[in-house]
This record gives sequence, C-alpha cells and structure tokens, in this order.
Amino acid sequence: MTFHTDPSLTPFFEPKGIVLIGASTKPTSLGFGVARNLVQSGYPGAIHFVNPKSGMLWERPLHPTLTAVPDPVDLAVLLIPAQFAPQTLAACGERGIRAAIIASGGFRETDETGAALETECLDIARQYQMRLIGPNCIGLLDTHLPLDTTFLPPPGPNAGDIAFISHSGAICAALIDWSFGQGFGFSRLVSLGNQADVSETDMLAAIANDPHTKVITMYMEGVKNGRSFIQQASQVTQQKPVIVHKVGRTASGQQAAASHTGALAGSESAFDAAFRRAGVIRAQSSEEQFDWAKALAWCPLPTGRNVAVLTNAGGPGVTAADALEANGLQLAPLHEDTVAQLQAILPPFASLHNPVDMLASASPNDYAQCLQTLLADEQVHSAMVILPPPPMFSAGAVAHALIPVITTADKPVVVALMGNRLIPEAAQHFRAAHVPEYPFPERAARALAVLAQRSEFLAQAPLSVFPRRRERQVPLPLGGLSTEALGQLLTAYGIRVPVLELADSVETAVSLANTISYPVALKIASPDILHKSDMGGVILNVTTPEAVAQNYTSLIEKAAATYPHAKIEGVHIQPMIPAGQEVIIGAVQDPQFGPVIMFGSGGVEVEGLADVAFALAPLTEADAHYLLGNTWAGKKLAGFRNIEAGDKTAVLDTLYRLGQLVSDFPEIAEIEINPLRVLAAGQGVYALDVRAIRRK
Amino acid sequence: MTFHTDPSLTPFFEPKGIVLIGASTKPTSLGFGVARNLVQSGYPGAIHFVNPKSGMLWERPLHPTLTAVPDPVDLAVLLIPAQFAPQTLAACGERGIRAAIIASGGFRETDETGAALETECLDIARQYQMRLIGPNCIGLLDTHLPLDTTFLPPPGPNAGDIAFISHSGAICAALIDWSFGQGFGFSRLVSLGNQADVSETDMLAAIANDPHTKVITMYMEGVKNGRSFIQQASQVTQQKPVIVHKVGRTASGQQAAASHTGALAGSESAFDAAFRRAGVIRAQSSEEQFDWAKALAWCPLPTGRNVAVLTNAGGPGVTAADALEANGLQLAPLHEDTVAQLQAILPPFASLHNPVDMLASASPNDYAQCLQTLLADEQVHSAMVILPPPPMFSAGAVAHALIPVITTADKPVVVALMGNRLIPEAAQHFRAAHVPEYPFPERAARALAVLAQRSEFLAQAPLSVFPRRRERQVPLPLGGLSTEALGQLLTAYGIRVPVLELADSVETAVSLANTISYPVALKIASPDILHKSDMGGVILNVTTPEAVAQNYTSLIEKAAATYPHAKIEGVHIQPMIPAGQEVIIGAVQDPQFGPVIMFGSGGVEVEGLADVAFALAPLTEADAHYLLGNTWAGKKLAGFRNIEAGDKTAVLDTLYRLGQLVSDFPEIAEIEINPLRVLAAGQGVYALDVRAIRRK
Repeated sequence: MTFHTDPSLTPFFEPKGIVLIGASTKPTSLGFGVARNLVQSGYPGAIHFVNPKSGMLWERPLHPTLTAVPDPVDLAVLLIPAQFAPQTLAACGERGIRAAIIASGGFRETDETGAALETECLDIARQYQMRLIGPNCIGLLDTHLPLDTTFLPPPGPNAGDIAFISHSGAICAALIDWSFGQGFGFSRLVSLGNQADVSETDMLAAIANDPHTKVITMYMEGVKNGRSFIQQASQVTQQKPVIVHKVGRTASGQQAAASHTGALAGSESAFDAAFRRAGVIRAQSSEEQFDWAKALAWCPLPTGRNVAVLTNAGGPGVTAADALEANGLQLAPLHEDTVAQLQAILPPFASLHNPVDMLASASPNDYAQCLQTLLADEQVHSAMVILPPPPMFSAGAVAHALIPVITTADKPVVVALMGNRLIPEAAQHFRAAHVPEYPFPERAARALAVLAQRSEFLAQAPLSVFPRRRERQVPLPLGGLSTEALGQLLTAYGIRVPVLELADSVETAVSLANTISYPVALKIASPDILHKSDMGGVILNVTTPEAVAQNYTSLIEKAAATYPHAKIEGVHIQPMIPAGQEVIIGAVQDPQFGPVIMFGSGGVEVEGLADVAFALAPLTEADAHYLLGNTWAGKKLAGFRNIEAGDKTAVLDTLYRLGQLVSDFPEIAEIEINPLRVLAAGQGVYALDVRAIRRK
Repeated sequence: MTFHTDPSLTPFFEPKGIVLIGASTKPTSLGFGVARNLVQSGYPGAIHFVNPKSGMLWERPLHPTLTAVPDPVDLAVLLIPAQFAPQTLAACGERGIRAAIIASGGFRETDETGAALETECLDIARQYQMRLIGPNCIGLLDTHLPLDTTFLPPPGPNAGDIAFISHSGAICAALIDWSFGQGFGFSRLVSLGNQADVSETDMLAAIANDPHTKVITMYMEGVKNGRSFIQQASQVTQQKPVIVHKVGRTASGQQAAASHTGALAGSESAFDAAFRRAGVIRAQSSEEQFDWAKALAWCPLPTGRNVAVLTNAGGPGVTAADALEANGLQLAPLHEDTVAQLQAILPPFASLHNPVDMLASASPNDYAQCLQTLLADEQVHSAMVILPPPPMFSAGAVAHALIPVITTADKPVVVALMGNRLIPEAAQHFRAAHVPEYPFPERAARALAVLAQRSEFLAQAPLSVFPRRRERQVPLPLGGLSTEALGQLLTAYGIRVPVLELADSVETAVSLANTISYPVALKIASPDILHKSDMGGVILNVTTPEAVAQNYTSLIEKAAATYPHAKIEGVHIQPMIPAGQEVIIGAVQDPQFGPVIMFGSGGVEVEGLADVAFALAPLTEADAHYLLGNTWAGKKLAGFRNIEAGDKTAVLDTLYRLGQLVSDFPEIAEIEINPLRVLAAGQGVYALDVRAIRRK
C-alpha cells in the first residue's frame, strides 16, 4: 500500500545525516535539548552540530559554520533567533540540503516583522527547492527509525503504531507524556507549527506510507486547502483510518448570511461534510481520539453491529447495554447452542442471555471459556468483556486467561477494566497483547461503534471523491441575479421552475393571467426583497381577472410601503402548482471547502426547526442519500400518515443538479430554492422560489 | 442543615454495637472479609461475631448464638445462606436489634424460592419494626465514623466528602478501587441490593444529614416510588448537590402508544423531567459523575458563566474555548486594567486576551500572578488553568504556586493538568488542596458548566415541588371517552373547545350549520377513529347548506369504507376558528412518576420532527417556561418572520390546566390536544381536536 508522496519530503523521515544549527552546550537551552534527543533517540545516521563558539557536545565537535560540516547531511534543524533564519536557510541551500525544520519561534505568530521573516524564509526555500517544516514547531519524531528532532524532556514516547500530526506543539508534548499512562505508543509524530511550507495535507500521505503506522491521528485547527485535503485524505482512508480532533469552532464563528442556508451553514458544517466525504473520523476530544485509535490499530473489524457483553456483575452489564444502544450498536441475540454451552460452564443463577452475567464467582477460566463460546456464535460480531476487580481472583489472572482467546479471534474484543490499584497487572497484560482496555463500559462501547463505522465505510465501493467536473451547462454569463435570470439558470440545469411572467402594469397582469389560465399566483417582483412571503408579497389561488387587478395594486403598494428603497419591477404571474411536500435545497460557498449543499424542511421555519443536513458539492451518490436519510424532510418523502409520498427520485436529481450548478458558478455565494415543491412519484418537482447572492 | 430522617435508620450509621452473624475464620470466605473490615476499619463501637462453631476471630470470641452476644448491639450484619435468613432475622428482633444488613444473595435475584424468602424476611422485619438493607448487597461504609460492613478487599476508600448510594454492589467495588487514581475520597457509601425494605429514597435524607458529605452521588437502575423520590430529592438538592448516573434505558423500553405523546414519551423522558423538577443533576457516565462531584464538593459556586482561560500554549487554549462554548459557557471579556496588568507580567508576544496565553516560558510565579489578576476582574466568574508539563519548570512547582491563589479565591478554578509522568507531583498537590484537576480541557469545561448550573439552580426560589392538589373540578364521573365527553371535560377545566354539535343525519347537519353560521367545519364522529384527518375525516371551510349535505354523506361513506368495524355516530359540525399557530399539548401516565406533560410542534409531523419537551404534572411555573423555552413551537409563540406572535399566556394557562386535569384523573392513560390553535395575543386558544385513552 503506497500513496503518492512528494519525494521532496523523504529526507524528513529517511535522513542520511542531520545537522542541528544552534546546538548548545547550555543544559537549559532548547539547542541542548534537541542535540540530546538526536543522540539519545538512537538515530542511526550522521549527527552534526553547528555553533559559532565551537567546542564539543555529546562527543561530537561543534562546527563553527555549515560549510565545515562533513557529508552526509540532508536534513537541517534550525534553533536560532528568527532574524538569522533567512541567511542560515540560504546557507543550507548552498550546502545542498533540501529539507529543514525551523523550530524557533518569532515569526508569523508574533508580529509583522516576524511575518516578513517567515515569507523571506519561504522564498529562500522555494529558490533552493527546499521543503520546510515550521517555523515555531517542535519538530518530528519516528520511534522506529528511530529519530527525535524535538527538544522535549526525555523519555520520548513508546514505540507504537499510531501516528500523530499536530497544529500545536504543546498538544504534542502533553499527549506524549499522557500516552505513558494509556498503554499506546506512537509511530511518527510531526509538529507543523506555522506551516510556512509543509501542511497537514502534505504530511498525510508521507505518514500513511509508513509501514509501522496503522492509524493516523491529527490535531487540527484548520486546513490550508480544503479540497486538496479531501483528495489526499480520501485516498489514505481507503487504506488506514484517519481520526481528526478538529478545534477552532469558536474562532471560525458565523458570518452574516443572506439566506436560511447561509444562516445554518457555518464552517463546522463544511468540515463535517468534508470529513464524511473523505472517510475521516472526527473525535470531539483527545481522549476519544486515542480511545478509538487503539481499537482501530489493534482489533480486526466487525462484520456487523451485534455485540456480546460478558460480565461478572449486573450493574456494569446494564451500563454497557445502555451505552451500546446509545452508540447505534445492539446486544447480539444468542443462538440456543451458545446459551446451552454457557449453561454448562456457569452456575445456576448466572444470566445466560446477553449481557451474559457469570456472577461474582467467575474464574479466569470461566471468562475465557465463555468469551470463546460467545465469539463462536455467528450472530455475535464483536464483544465487550467487563472486568471489575473480581472478588475471588486477581484481574491479572483473568487478563492472562482471556488474552489468547482475544488475540486469536477474528472478531474485535474490547475490555472495560474498571479500577485502579487492583488492575495494573491486568492493564499491563492487555496493553502488551494489544487488547484495548477502557476504564468504563461507556468508552468501550464508543470504541466498538467506531470499529463498526470503519468496517461499514470500507465495505462501500471506493469513493470517486468529486464527480468529474463538467463544462458549464449554460453559456450565458451570470448577469444580475434577478428572479428571471435565476429561473433561466435553473432551467438550463434541468431544474423545473414554474412559468413566470413579469407584469409591470395592472393591464399586463390581467392579460398574462388570462393567457396562463386560472387559478394563478401573484408574487412581488423585486431584486431587493429576499423573503417575499414575509411581507405578504405572495398571493396564491387568484381565480378571476378582477382579483388579479386588485391584488396587483395592493402588492405594489404594500412593497413600496414596507421597503421604500427597494427597486420594484412589478408582479410575477405564475400558474398554481399541484399540492405536494415542500423542502428546501440551498448552497453556500465555504471559504475552505467550496460549495456546500443544504437539504431539509423548508418554509419560513427552516432556521427554527433546523431539520437540515449538509454535503459538499458536487454531490456523490452517498452524499445525496445521506441528505435524505438524515433529515425528517428526506424521510417523509417516502410518505407518512396522510402525507403522500413525494417524487424522491426527482429530489435526488435536483440535489445533483444544484450541486453541479454551484460548482460551476463559484461566483454565487449563496443560492436557495425554498420551497422546492415535490409532487407525487413520477410527477417531478418545481422550484417555486429561488434567491441568490453574488460573492463579494 | 437537617432533613427529616426516619430515626429507624439511625443505627445503620451510628451503631453502638454490631453483630456479624456468619463470621468465619476461613480467610477466603465473605464472612471472614466482613469481620476483617469491621475490625480494621477502626470502628469505635462494640464488634461481636456469631458462628455456631465457636472459637476466636480477630481477638474476639465467636458466640454460638445471638442470645449469647453481650450489649451493646443494635446493628446486625447477616452473611448466612438465604434459607436461614428468616429465622435469624427473627432472632435479631427478639434480641432487640432494629437494624439489619443482609449481605447474602439467593433471594429475589435468583428464583421464586428466593423471592419467597425475601418476602418472609420483610414480613419479619415489619413485625419487629426492624429496618433492612439488602439482601444481596455489599453493605455500607462510613469513612469518618469509621465503619465498614463490606467484604471488599482492603484498603477501604480514602476518607472524603462525596457520598455514594448504589443499586449495584459491583459498581461500588469498582468505583472504590478506581477512586484511588482520581484523588477524591468517599464519606459514606451504601450498596442497596434488592431493596426489600430500605430504598434509594430512604437513604437519601439519611446521607444528606451527614456533615462530612458535601455531594451525594447515586448509581440508579430505577426508583421504587417516583413521586416520593422527587419529594425527598427536592429537599436535599436545596442543600447539597445530588448527581445521578441513571442506567437501564434499554430495559425500560418503549410501550405501544395510542397517541403521538405516548409514542414520544418513553420512561427516560419522565426520568429527565423528574430529575429536573427535583434539581438532580444527571450524569451519563461514572466518569462524568465524579468529575462533577469533585468540582461541586471543592469549589465555590460562580455567579455567572464568564470563564477566564489561562494557558501556556495556544492549542489547549483553543480546545478550551471550544469546549466552554459547547457547554454553554463563554470566554470572559477582560477589563482593560486586567489586560494592562497582564501585560506588565508577561513577555511581548503573549496573548493578553482571553484565552490568556503566557507562552511556553511561563514560570510558576507567572501562573500565580496572572491567575490572581484574572480572578480580580469583576467580569470573570470562574477560571480554567491549563497546565501541560511546562518545558522549563516542573508542573509540581506551578501547582505549588497556584494553590494559595486558588484556595483563597471566592471563584471556582479548575485545572486541565495534561500528561502522565511529568505531573504526579502536581496532581498530588492539587488533590491535597482540593483543587479539581482533569486530564483535558474538555472535561474541565464540563465541570465548570455544572458549577454554573448548580449556582443558577440555587438562585431560583425554592421550589414548591408539586402544586397543591385540588379537588376535582368536575363532579362528572368519567364516562366513555367520546369527543363530547372530552369536550365537556376540557371545558370544565377552563380549556376552550369550539362549539361542537353532533349531526346524525343530513338534515340535522344542515340545520346545525345554519344555526352556527357559515363557514363551518365537518368532522367524522366516531370513538373508534383516533387520527381523523389521516382518513380525510375533516372537511374545513364549508360555506353552503348544499356543501354540508354533500360532505356529510361522503364523510359517512368514507369512514364506513375505511373503518368497517368502527362505530360511526355521525358528523360533528363546528364553526371555523380564526387562523393562528398550532401546537400540541399531551399527557401520559408514567408508571414511575405519574402524569407527564408534553408540549411542542403539533400536526401530523410531530413524531418525525420531535420538537417536543416533557415535564411532570401538575406543572410548576418553572416547568411551564421550560416547555416553551426548549421547543421551537414555544419560541415561535413570540412571533417569527411573517408568523405572528400567539397568545403565550393562554398557552401557559392551558398547560397548567391540562396538567391539573391529568393529575386529577389518573384513569386517563393518554390525552392529547392536537392541534391547539393559538390565536393572537389576548385572543386565547382553541383545543381543535382532543383524543384520550382510558388506562387498562
């Protein structure tokens, strides 16, 4: 399994020789720390130090200049004041070095002088075709090469199979230390800092190619290029799970919006849609992230959502059952043979049905035999073993008995190992055997749910990430976003709009209505009035020429009174459309991820009810079904009580078409069809009203 | 602060002498374990052992019978086979003992023989006016008396200020062991077992009276008597926080329901409503429960929701900001004087605005000074200190510097102490000083949110738990639940229903319509058709006698065709009601908590949209406002876009009235007004349709 990785990134993970510029003999300095970690990590290549003062450090000479450093050297780590970075980087370029980590701070994160220095560094790097990690980062480490370019106090993390890519150096430091108590280790870890050059997306494939890495975790504060992140991540997630802890909701905030879609979207909807498209799993905390990473790294994937729970007490069993249900899993029904086998093992009052409660007397052997029995049941897809310290046996002995059963099974087994002083031996056994254990059933249940989710994701056909881009379907340049222009645009994309005729006088209105035939609808025509029905600007079911005349006049007067500054063009006359369900379909341009489609319950209450879902445009088939499957508006299209089923196929088709339209016209900032009238199956849909805003 | 505690419970917590019946010299037996814990706990009163074999145990004689046990003895612990329990309990009664813990299993949790033994024990206990904990439990402990009647392997839990009441013995055992790693201790702990006599509700006040207990936590699988739990808990929560981890959602399941309200309610809605009424905080896991208990036990309460975040790195600060927002808290705006003072302390590129990022160089003194400065700001109500292991200093030194600032503050401060190997000293300091620390900002933020919630709860006027019960307002015995009878019932409770006249022939229909005056509505009249509009059984806006005649006939024919077995009484004729918003108000009888009221968006889509909220009947004022404040239907009553405001006062009034009605008529299993038409302010409401089901 390999991904296309820019070969320019290779020296970061396979350097033949490293030079540390700014190595220091002062034990409290960061330059001392990096030198120590380089040497103590056991890095097998050449390590060189540069410091103008010369002398010795870690049994190596301090070279006064870079030119004095002998070959091989293809990776530089810079720990020098920011103002010297550009010239030093240029010297690296001259020396033939094509990869550098600037660990120092004092760049874009401080002030404009720092930002200018960062730009200068980037320019120099480009000039020498050099790749740059940082500045303002703690570098990277690989526990298998091994390599450690950080200045973090030893010990470095345990070697493991989970990689970590981070926009925060402090989070790296904290998680490395935290990991010692969690039983997992890291394969590779990269702190990206200011990302002057190398971004999270660049790093993703480079890390995915690492054979020691089974799961990739990311701490993310944003993405540099949304669409390219999705392209890259989509390929990686087909092979290895990617779990992102994305923060910065607060910072991203909400922009003022002109449509319901704009008001409801916000950048987090786009991130969620992007992660779903790319198959990325989103965690809400570091704790969740690594709870799940352990399970994904260590367990086979389940073939379904049926879970067997094995416990030695009732309470934790009930807790587990609740937690499974809350996470979309279910208690496996047990085959009668399974029940009979359990009965042969267990005492009379044990509970033989799932959750299987062996009672407090359960021995290590009981645990092992019962688990083996449960895992042999075809209806069981995964198992949770609950292990509070048993009153009569040591938890360590139970772990010892369970491990051979778990590690030879082709189904995932997680353990709720509840306690502290009575469980360290058991924890140690499980961790050494790569059996995920959690302090409570709730966290174990969520890990099982993530395994099921990953399994279902891989069972889908590989995604075509973005449908092939087509030529714009309308040659017309997008003029003013008048109702007529938008109607033409929708029509060009095959979205049906009702006949719409503009009347600019009472006489024209009556004449048009006579031609269209009654009943007709009248709508105020003004590019400046977005929410027409809010001002009573829509009159339905007008049945006579007299009523058309009367309503024409009153609409014009009302609009002039309500919006004295609006340009009022007249009144639109439309035929009445057959009854049906009504939905909203909208799109906004997200600054990171481009066009995002919204679907849901429409009308004026859309913001209050918030029965909406989002996906990236252009839509994939999976996206379109997600939109319909995750909203009440979508579910209702199949019919509900006296609400007749609607033309679901036409709604799906319209979703694709609007998705294509907004992909083709990035100049549209927001567009919204509300309502989209959905007729009976086979009868299609009508875009009854459409509004759009041009991008500023 | 004292609560009325049944004095019969006193011997459980203040025994003058204890007898263990079933004490054993066999070290692997439970009877040995209890003897060991009684003696080793340091219990200051008399400890006696009974065992027919006689001999010595823990330097005490084994008495062959209870009669041989000397005074004082007022609490018995029984660890004997179930079949001997009744006679032994009787002997305790004869001996004058009025409190007993039956730790043994083999009762109701096993089979019918066990259940019969349990009933026999209860009968004997009642006969001697003796109180009983268990059977099938692990007993109780009090770390301050001290007293330990459990057989759990030593050491017993650390002394502390959090009490724990549990329906599961295994959860007790696991949490005691787990607590050693968490830095909190227990004051009292009770395992309730089968609750033959003493229930969670009985225990609540007894434990609340304990001066060493600051917070009460409960692991709950159900309640014995819902209303009495609420009464008791409501009094306790005015003085001490109660945090319940309620499990058993799956077991409680959903009953088949005849109304939307019934379909949406389920027993968890009733539990949530009950906890809200009683001021009980509901946790979703043990981890949450004790995260929150620590904060509530150790921190002063905040006077608002503004939080200052103090960090030495950007990433955890962003994480904290997100987590605060997600939990309904906000970053405190800082006063300019505060900013100026921070500037004087911190280096040039530190971030002086909330989150305050002191940068990685922050010293223990920087932490302390900045926190002091932030806490002095009036706009700051609480603070979160983020402490990943600082690169230049020990986390322990930072903790040491922070603690005097935190413990002398009148505002709550929580710490996100991130790491493992580098933080034990800091953790120890914080725990000893009763400063709550959490491994990540997310968990610290939730604890702060719970403190704010508790503060707001106490700021309310003490609740009158249930409004005073009144006499039934209608003398009429509840007959058949026909539309007419329900209309009369609502009318008697002051809920307006439209005039409703039954026509049993075309002629009567026309004559009634003429009297009522046009337009009128026609509705099929049948006690067997619950969802009338689903079958087209409602015709609105009928304007002429001819149309009344025609619709009468077609309604009768359609109903007969759709429901061939329904009793069809004719057609109801009603005046048309003015337009307005429409909501649903319903009620169901919950088996635990009695009548529960539902309010929300009505119509046929109520189940799909699930825009509903629940509260216990009769409603308090706080409940009524909760129902309106937590649904879109409620918020919309204030008006939204072109939806005019509705008569909110009348809706509130109707909620109270329906709440009173269902409290008065427990024989009504489900009742539902859907829709309730809400007219403009001052115009009142109409119950347009009502249906009800009698309790089976």
